[in-house]
Amino acid sequence: MDFNLIDATNVLKRTPRVLRAMLDGLSPEWTDANEGPDTWSPFVIVGHLIHGERTDWIPRAQLILAQGTARRFEPYDRFAQFRESHGKSLAELLDEFERLRAANLAALAEWRLTDRHLNLEGEHPAFGPVSLRQLLATWVAHDVSHVAQIGRVMAKQYREAVGPWRAYLPIVDR
Amino acid sequence: MDFNLIDATNVLKRTPRVLRAMLDGLSPEWTDANEGPDTWSPFVIVGHLIHGERTDWIPRAQLILAQGTARRFEPYDRFAQFRESHGKSLAELLDEFERLRAANLAALAEWRLTDRHLNLEGEHPAFGPVSLRQLLATWVAHDVSHVAQIGRVMAKQYREAVGPWRAYLPIVDR
Repeated sequence: MDFNLIDATNVLKRTPRVLRAMLDGLSPEWTDANEGPDTWSPFVIVGHLIHGERTDWIPRAQLILAQGTARRFEPYDRFAQFRESHGKSLAELLDEFERLRAANLAALAEWRLTDRHLNLEGEHPAFGPVSLRQLLATWVAHDVSHVAQIGRVMAKQYREAVGPWRAYLPIVDR
Repeated sequence: MDFNLIDATNVLKRTPRVLRAMLDGLSPEWTDANEGPDTWSPFVIVGHLIHGERTDWIPRAQLILAQGTARRFEPYDRFAQFRESHGKSLAELLDEFERLRAANLAALAEWRLTDRHLNLEGEHPAFGPVSLRQLLATWVAHDVSHVAQIGRVMAKQYREAVGPWRAYLPIVDR
């Protein structure tokens, strides 16, 4: 499927509602559960998505659109949420994510991006040249992959409780 | 994590809202997309969840609770949705799922299940004896595993569009 700005935005704008529907008001047994050592809980994942809104997608898009001499992205901190979410409730994080996502999609809409813009490139610290189109497609795929991750983390909590049905739920052993 | 009826119900009641937040109003490019031959699109998955509400979870629970001489479950038809969803819109399916799930959770609440009930057994056509507790835990794990599947199916649609970021998104190649 080719990247399409309207389809992409239509997914991106849903994610705050999806996370709220999945997690808001759920007990910490679910929201703090993870898949074992060094894996992430739904709470950690929401913090990670917030950090992306602040430092990744839109700031990198701005860097590309500016087409200045410095087009190299700051490396993304995959662990920032352990610091930044500290002391916050999940409800606060869900609000924060919703607010940031709405502001970022407003910025995106204001740019009125054309194919010419989407073809512009920045420099990824590991990959080298990447286009704005690829960056925005990754924003979408990253969102839905973390929604999938939350579903998987939750399913795994009942790995034992489902008894013999475990054989029909390969996700709990993935 | 041990099965707990309150925690389980709290997840089950969310699923119609989660699916609506993910899918309602999204273009068919997303909702009819799948992972290749003989895999399911989000549209197919919602139909499968509807069939479960009609024929699986609550009917099987009733069979267990009745403790009659016939405690063997009807085999579950994993392909019923290809027939039953035919000609329906995704919006209709989302409404239908929401209605059925609400009715089923109302039935579940009315039963006022105790540990004694949860320990009662039925006979699964493949596994043999299974408890009501295991059946209800599977209902929950099944829900969230299909939410995860929808996220994965969607992420895969941008497998090529993300360019080099594919290396950081293992889900698109799973």
